[in-house]
Amino acid sequence: MATRVRIPISLAQIHAVVGGELVGSPQDTVTSLASLEVAGPNDLTFVTGDRMLKASGPTVAGALLAHRRLAEIANPHIVVANPTLAFAQVAKIFFCPVAPPRGIDATVVRGIDTHVGSDVSIWPGVTLGDRVKIGARVTLYPGVFVGDDTTIGDDTLLYPNVVVREGCSIGARVIIHSGAVIGSDGFGYVQDQGRHYKIPQLGGVTIEDDAELGANVTVDRATILGQKTVIMKGAKVDNLVQIAHNVTIGAHSILVAQVGIAGSTRVGHHVMIGGQAGLADHIVIGDQVMIAARAGVNRSLEPNQIVSGAPVMPHEVWVKAQAVIPRLPELRQAVRTLEERMRQLEALQSAPPVSKTNVKKRAR
Amino acid sequence: MATRVRIPISLAQIHAVVGGELVGSPQDTVTSLASLEVAGPNDLTFVTGDRMLKASGPTVAGALLAHRRLAEIANPHIVVANPTLAFAQVAKIFFCPVAPPRGIDATVVRGIDTHVGSDVSIWPGVTLGDRVKIGARVTLYPGVFVGDDTTIGDDTLLYPNVVVREGCSIGARVIIHSGAVIGSDGFGYVQDQGRHYKIPQLGGVTIEDDAELGANVTVDRATILGQKTVIMKGAKVDNLVQIAHNVTIGAHSILVAQVGIAGSTRVGHHVMIGGQAGLADHIVIGDQVMIAARAGVNRSLEPNQIVSGAPVMPHEVWVKAQAVIPRLPELRQAVRTLEERMRQLEALQSAPPVSKTNVKKRAR
Amino acid sequence: MATRVRIPISLAQIHAVVGGELVGSPQDTVTSLASLEVAGPNDLTFVTGDRMLKASGPTVAGALLAHRRLAEIANPHIVVANPTLAFAQVAKIFFCPVAPPRGIDATVVRGIDTHVGSDVSIWPGVTLGDRVKIGARVTLYPGVFVGDDTTIGDDTLLYPNVVVREGCSIGARVIIHSGAVIGSDGFGYVQDQGRHYKIPQLGGVTIEDDAELGANVTVDRATILGQKTVIMKGAKVDNLVQIAHNVTIGAHSILVAQVGIAGSTRVGHHVMIGGQAGLADHIVIGDQVMIAARAGVNRSLEPNQIVSGAPVMPHEVWVKAQAVIPRLPELRQAVRTLEERMRQLEALQSAPPVSKTNVKKRAR
Repeated sequence: MATRVRIPISLAQIHAVVGGELVGSPQDTVTSLASLEVAGPNDLTFVTGDRMLKASGPTVAGALLAHRRLAEIANPHIVVANPTLAFAQVAKIFFCPVAPPRGIDATVVRGIDTHVGSDVSIWPGVTLGDRVKIGARVTLYPGVFVGDDTTIGDDTLLYPNVVVREGCSIGARVIIHSGAVIGSDGFGYVQDQGRHYKIPQLGGVTIEDDAELGANVTVDRATILGQKTVIMKGAKVDNLVQIAHNVTIGAHSILVAQVGIAGSTRVGHHVMIGGQAGLADHIVIGDQVMIAARAGVNRSLEPNQIVSGAPVMPHEVWVKAQAVIPRLPELRQAVRTLEERMRQLEALQSAPPVSKTNVKKRAR
Repeated sequence: MATRVRIPISLAQIHAVVGGELVGSPQDTVTSLASLEVAGPNDLTFVTGDRMLKASGPTVAGALLAHRRLAEIANPHIVVANPTLAFAQVAKIFFCPVAPPRGIDATVVRGIDTHVGSDVSIWPGVTLGDRVKIGARVTLYPGVFVGDDTTIGDDTLLYPNVVVREGCSIGARVIIHSGAVIGSDGFGYVQDQGRHYKIPQLGGVTIEDDAELGANVTVDRATILGQKTVIMKGAKVDNLVQIAHNVTIGAHSILVAQVGIAGSTRVGHHVMIGGQAGLADHIVIGDQVMIAARAGVNRSLEPNQIVSGAPVMPHEVWVKAQAVIPRLPELRQAVRTLEERMRQLEALQSAPPVSKTNVKKRAR
Repeated sequence: MATRVRIPISLAQIHAVVGGELVGSPQDTVTSLASLEVAGPNDLTFVTGDRMLKASGPTVAGALLAHRRLAEIANPHIVVANPTLAFAQVAKIFFCPVAPPRGIDATVVRGIDTHVGSDVSIWPGVTLGDRVKIGARVTLYPGVFVGDDTTIGDDTLLYPNVVVREGCSIGARVIIHSGAVIGSDGFGYVQDQGRHYKIPQLGGVTIEDDAELGANVTVDRATILGQKTVIMKGAKVDNLVQIAHNVTIGAHSILVAQVGIAGSTRVGHHVMIGGQAGLADHIVIGDQVMIAARAGVNRSLEPNQIVSGAPVMPHEVWVKAQAVIPRLPELRQAVRTLEERMRQLEALQSAPPVSKTNVKKRAR
C-alpha cells in the first residue's frame, strides 16, 4: 500500500476538503501521513491541543492540521475545528485507493429474483440466495454468503467470508469485517424431560446505515417471525463481539472487542461498552452510559452514568473498593487483633479491680 | 421469510401435531406466530402459567397453547403439558420452510473414496476430502470444508464457512453455525531453550447426535492418536465458545456464548455454564452443576450445585460477598476508627486513675 | 488418520531422529503413540520424571522416551534430555502424513503480478490479490483470501477460510488456523457532533517466522501508513484471541484462548498470558511476565513477575485476598459486633463508677 501512494498532494487540495484557515502556501505539498512524533518534511500530521504540541517538541512535519493558529512555528498548517476528523477525511480521500468496480463475476451463485445495483464489485466465490437485493456500489468479497430475502444497502462493504443469513436487512454504507456472522440462530431451547428442544428462530436482523461490525462478530437473529435483532445507525462494534437474539443496540453506540450481550437486552444510544464486558439478558441500558472494560452488568442502568466492576457499581465506588481488595488479608488481621484486645479490655472491666501486675499475668 | 408464510393453518392441524385437549373449533385458523403480549387475531401464541397470563392482560390472540383449560377467556386454545415445547413444534413443522434437496453441485471439490448419502444439499464452494462420509439429507452450505476421513451423520446441517478438519466424527441431526471450526489443532507445545516446539495434535473430535454449535465456535482436536475431544449428545453450545483439546462436554449440557474451557477438562451431563465463564484445565465438573455467567472455575466441582464468582464459590456465598465489595472502603474506615477508639480505651486502662477532665485532654 | 498409520517404526529409526542413548534392541518396533497411562505393547510413549513414572505404575509400552536410564524396567527406551520434545519430533516425522504438493488449482483467482514459489498446494476457492508473493511449499486451503501486496513466507500453512488482508507480511513456517482474520481494520473513530467517523486504517500486520495463530483469531492492522501490528517470531496465539491495532507481541510469547489486547500495547518476549485475560491499551508488559487466566491488566508491568486478578496484583497477594472474599459478610459482622462492644466499654468508661449489677442492666 504505502509504496503506491506517493503522489504529491497540495495544501490547496487538502484545504478544499477540510475547510478552515490555511496558514502557509497553498502550493506546498505532502506525500504521506504520519503521527506528530514521527512526521517528516513530506508528511501531513495533526495536532489537537497545546499539550500534545508541547509533548512532541519541535516538528519538521511538512504540514499540520491544527486546533488553532500556530504563530510559534513556521510549518504550514490548516486551522480546523476538529483536526483528527480533518486528518481522517484527508486519509480517506487521498490515501485510500478506490478500485474501479469489478461488476459481478460470472461464477457467482445467484438464486432466483435477485436484484443487483450498479457499479458493484461481487467477487468469485460469493453466494446470493433467492430474492436478494444488493444496492449500488456494494462490494462483496470472496466467500461472502447472502441468504434468501436479505437486502444490502448502497455502498456497503462485506469483507471475505462474511455470512448474512436469510431475511436480514443491512443498511447503506455499512462495513462488515471478515468472518462476521449475521443472522445465526438465537440460542433458544425448551427443556422437556431432560432434553433441549430447539425453538425455531424465525425473526431477522437489521443493521442500520453507517454501522460497522468487526471481524468474527456474531449477531443472532430474533426468535419470533417479524421481530428483529437491531443494530442502529452509526453503531460501531469491534471484533469477536457476541450479540444475542432480540437485542437492540442504540444509535452511535460503541462496543469494544469481545463484549457479550445476552438476549433481549436493549442498549441506548451513545453508549460505550469496554472490551470483554458482559451484559445479562432482558435488561435496559440508558443512553450515554459508559460501561468499563470487563464489567459484568447484571441489572438495568439509568442513562448518563459510568459503571465498573462485576457486578457493576458506580465507577468511583469501584475504584475505591478495588484499592481495598489486595489489603483484605491485613484488614481481616486487624479485626482479629481488635477482637483480642477487646477481649482483654472486657476481661478487665468485668473483673474485680486488680493491680497492674495481675493484668499482665492474665494477658499471657 | 415472514412475507411468504401466510397460509392458514387450522387448529385441527396443530392439534394433530401437539396433542392435548382442543378447546374451541378445529376449523379455526391462524397464519402466524407471536408472543403473548403482541399476538393478534391471526396469531398462535402460548402461555405457560397463570402469572404470565395475568401479566399480559386480555389477549386477542387467534389461538393459544396453554398449560390448563382457560375457562375465563373465549379464545380457542389447546391444553398441553409443555406449551413452549408445543409452540416450538408448531414453529418447526409449519413455519420453517424446507427447501427440496439440491443434490451435489457439480463444482464441489471431492477427494477420493467419498461417500454421500441420498437427498443431500451440497452447495457450490464446498470441499470434501478423501474418504469423507456424508449421511442422508445432510446440508452443506457454501464454504464448508470437510477434511479427510471425517464422517457427517444423517440430517446434519452445516451453515456457510464451517470447517471440520480431518479425522472428525459429526453425528446425526447436528447443527453447526457459520464460521465454526471443528478439529483445529490443540494448543500444545514443549519448551526447549526458550522456544516452543509444536506437539503434533493427532487426535480427533467427536460431536454426538443432536448437538448444536454456535457461530464462530472453536473445538480443538485431541492430542494423541485415538483420543477425541467429545461433545456428547444433545449438548448445546452458543456462539464464540472455545473448547480445548481433550475436553469432554456431557450430554444435554448448555454452554452460553463466549465460554472458554481449557484442555482435558470433563464437564458432566445437564451442566449449565453461563456466558463468558472460564474453566481451568484438567478439572471435572459434576452432573447438573450450574455455573453462573462470568464465573472463573479453577477447581473440580461436585454434582448438583450452583456456583458463581472468580474463583468460584457457592452461589449464595457469592451473592452475600458481592454485596460487601462496594462497601469495603467504609468497612476499612470502621476498622481504623475502632483501632483509634481501642487505643484510647487501652490508654485509660493502663494509666493511673484520672478525673474525667484529664481523659478529655488526652483524647485530643 | 489413525486407521492409516500402522507401519512399524524401528527404535533405530526413532533413535536417528531424537539422538540420546538407546537401551534395548534397535530392531524393536512401534506402530503408534500413546500417553504413559494407556500405552500398549505397540505404542511409543514418554516419561519426563520419576514422579510421572511412579504415578502411572508398571507399563507395557512398546518403548519409551525417558529422562534417565530406567534400570528398573525391561521395556526398551531411549534416554534424551527432553523426552516431550523427542516425542513431538517423532510424532511430526513419523505420524503426520505429508501429502504431495497439489500445485496451484486452475480455478484459483489471481490478481496481477503475483509470484508463487515452488511445490505449493493452493486449493480451489483461494483468492490471491495483486502483487501477492507466496513462498515455496506454502499450503493455502480452500476459502483462503490473500489481499493485495501481501507476502507469505516459505513453508507457511493457512487452513481453510483464513483471511489475510492487503499489505500484510506473514513469515516462514507460520501456521494460521481456520477462520483467523489478519489485517482487519483497527477500531479507530473520531467523534464529531455525536457521530463516529472512521479513521482509515492504513498500516499493516507483520507475523514473524514460526508464529502460530489459532482458529478465529483476529489481528487488526495498524492505523498509520508504514506502521505495523507485529507478532514476533515463535509467538503462539490460541483460538479466539483479539489483537488490536498497533499492538506488538514479543518473541516466543504465549497467549491462551480468548485473550484480548487493546490498541498500541506492547507485550515483551516470553510472556505468558492465561485464557480470557484482558490487557488495556497503551501499556507495556515486560519480558517473561506471567499473567494469570482472566486477569485484567490495566497498567504496565515490570519484567519477570506473576500477576493475577482484575485489576492485577502480584499473584501471591491475589491468592490471599481471594481467600477473604467469601468471608466478607462475616468480617463485616465481626466489625459490627466490635463496634457494639466498643460502645458498651466506652459507656462504662465515661459513666460514673458503677456496681457490676448496674453494668449488666445497661447491657440489655
